[in-house]
Amino acid sequence: MTDTHDLIRELRKDNGSKIVLLVADGLGGLPLEPGGKTELETARTPNLDALARRGTLGLSIPVLPGIAPGSGPGHLGLFGYDPLKYRIGRGVLEALGIDFPLGRNDVAIRGNFCTLDADGNITDRRAGRIASEVGQRLCAKLDQIQIPGVEVFVRPVKEYRLVIVFRAPGLGGDVDDTDPQATGVPPLAAIPRNSGSQRTADIANEFLRQARELLKEDAPANFLTLRGIDKLPAIPTFEEVYGLKAAAIAVYPMYRGLARLVHMTVLDAGQSLADQMARLEAEWNHYDFFFIHFKYTDSTGEDGNFAAKVARCEELDACLPRITALNPTVLIVTGDHSTPSKLKSHSWHPVPTLLVADSCRFDGATEFGETACLRGGLGQFEARYLMLLAMAHAGRLEKYGA
Amino acid sequence: MTDTHDLIRELRKDNGSKIVLLVADGLGGLPLEPGGKTELETARTPNLDALARRGTLGLSIPVLPGIAPGSGPGHLGLFGYDPLKYRIGRGVLEALGIDFPLGRNDVAIRGNFCTLDADGNITDRRAGRIASEVGQRLCAKLDQIQIPGVEVFVRPVKEYRLVIVFRAPGLGGDVDDTDPQATGVPPLAAIPRNSGSQRTADIANEFLRQARELLKEDAPANFLTLRGIDKLPAIPTFEEVYGLKAAAIAVYPMYRGLARLVHMTVLDAGQSLADQMARLEAEWNHYDFFFIHFKYTDSTGEDGNFAAKVARCEELDACLPRITALNPTVLIVTGDHSTPSKLKSHSWHPVPTLLVADSCRFDGATEFGETACLRGGLGQFEARYLMLLAMAHAGRLEKYGA
Repeated sequence: MTDTHDLIRELRKDNGSKIVLLVADGLGGLPLEPGGKTELETARTPNLDALARRGTLGLSIPVLPGIAPGSGPGHLGLFGYDPLKYRIGRGVLEALGIDFPLGRNDVAIRGNFCTLDADGNITDRRAGRIASEVGQRLCAKLDQIQIPGVEVFVRPVKEYRLVIVFRAPGLGGDVDDTDPQATGVPPLAAIPRNSGSQRTADIANEFLRQARELLKEDAPANFLTLRGIDKLPAIPTFEEVYGLKAAAIAVYPMYRGLARLVHMTVLDAGQSLADQMARLEAEWNHYDFFFIHFKYTDSTGEDGNFAAKVARCEELDACLPRITALNPTVLIVTGDHSTPSKLKSHSWHPVPTLLVADSCRFDGATEFGETACLRGGLGQFEARYLMLLAMAHAGRLEKYGA
Repeated sequence: MTDTHDLIRELRKDNGSKIVLLVADGLGGLPLEPGGKTELETARTPNLDALARRGTLGLSIPVLPGIAPGSGPGHLGLFGYDPLKYRIGRGVLEALGIDFPLGRNDVAIRGNFCTLDADGNITDRRAGRIASEVGQRLCAKLDQIQIPGVEVFVRPVKEYRLVIVFRAPGLGGDVDDTDPQATGVPPLAAIPRNSGSQRTADIANEFLRQARELLKEDAPANFLTLRGIDKLPAIPTFEEVYGLKAAAIAVYPMYRGLARLVHMTVLDAGQSLADQMARLEAEWNHYDFFFIHFKYTDSTGEDGNFAAKVARCEELDACLPRITALNPTVLIVTGDHSTPSKLKSHSWHPVPTLLVADSCRFDGATEFGETACLRGGLGQFEARYLMLLAMAHAGRLEKYGA
């Protein structure tokens, strides 16, 4: 069975066409009442509705039916990478999320400051949720740790959360968490799951030994646990698979990091959709593919704020004319997953998707929303096939076989 | 994961039922304007519409979303063979396309006559598109080439195109093209990609040595290049998988060749749909499965002639009463891919499919067209599952598991 990426490498061609992938994070929603409308359907979205009449709609299944993805697998799917094949560890995602320039020799770890009692048992796994300023100060202290033959980086994330990176050639990433997931017991030692990660475990244990000494006067944050120890997945680059020169325009670091993971060029996105649109216009001639990320359809959904998510859908809609004015060959509007405000969390519900190109087969849709997408011409499809459709409509795939 | 063919072999039974697979090549289309109708929807098709009311509709995805297949993978999918697993080389398809009786010991090659200058560099990769009569005469000359231990066949295709077949036990098919894909440079030597194909490359190079001598006075066709060097794929026969005695009724050689590839019996199809219908009627009692191929929905699409494709859909429709009069247990009308006249080429758009059997669940369709198929009971499905549905509706599959 041919791998989809191999198939694309075999069939792809360059014709100078341009593809825009606009990802409204957590776009899909739910109505609050039976027979009601979702957030997207409630929103007044004249630009998206006009595009729905010109394009083809469908529902994207991020991973598999019933699977609610995190941001990592959600975006990998949209980028055309099988999210069940390429897995991103928690430590790696945390490092990407603070814009840490993670390399192939790096082991990334999520750290949690914790509180130890006089016997060395954990009394609080989150160190009393110390202020971020305290976390920053303690991270600066830990960043001084020296271990022969390895570079050590310690960076604050927020409150009790931090990122630790060990950099040295040949380090394995298969080491268990040291968080015992309980209080009243001591933290665990770092244990390797295979011999290739013995050295990583040794480094982690030496790091913990020095950290315990450095933090001994810093209660409630007088120690830390290590979680999600992992390396970058071995993943082909976006350009190597698709032959597309790709740029990411994302305000939030996590999404810049996910784009960087597949070697997209990360552009300065400023602080708002208007900034992002200005960047898109300025860089239009320099790339074949633009990934534009809009965060707030997710964060308002997570907050359970239906009205705020509606407003964010309308804000997104208002930016569309600046994209269509550039006349992309293919424009896709979708989300990496659903985040219904009713559930206040990521969900598994298929994600409204709109694809606009001259080669679209129309499906009679007159608006962009979950119900219209259910009747759409793309049907329900796994997100990892979306890039195949984008490449096809962009005229960038040769015929398969004679 | 059980292979689908193994599952069919395990569950199949013979009940004397009959299946007709009517393939309208390139059937799927596109409207010319948003909100418009496709070629099939524009056509007046009272017989297909009546069948749509009695059957179930759906959209067939030939290979994967976004992949536009050639005739080979398009038909393999309809025959229930994974088109990503079984690949047909260009040389093999070209040999099938001229009705050459290709065997398991044959290496098939597509040849192109070309023009060499005095220094041996290519000045025209298509030999000035010589007339077919010239090509025939030169092929007759090359067909005299003798190489010890191997049978050599040289057959004209059209103009500068020809087919070369080397027949000997144990020849490998992994040899690179000798066409440098450029002018101003000499043709390449035949290079094997593995040791199992060294002898094939040696034979090819000896063939080219003799051909250069034979053609030296025949400018502009004073040499040839070799492309798409390949053998038949190792593929199970249709009867071995399905237990169906199958016959093909196809006017064009390529489709007879594809049927022969899976060991269907190839019947004399005459020159027209009327001839094909007469053959179907005459042979009705002798086979379980009939593959009937109609070419012109594809060729009119390739020509970009919307009105002509509409007319061909109507011509197809007119033959349906002769099929239904035979009362097949299962009748399927579909295409191997879409060929929208708007795009003038094969495309990836899902293909309208109609299945009629007494066991159909109705979907409310009142006509056969892309929009109705999008709402149809078969949904969107990969073409390689169509034969499973055909076998099921024919009552030819036992229950799976107790």
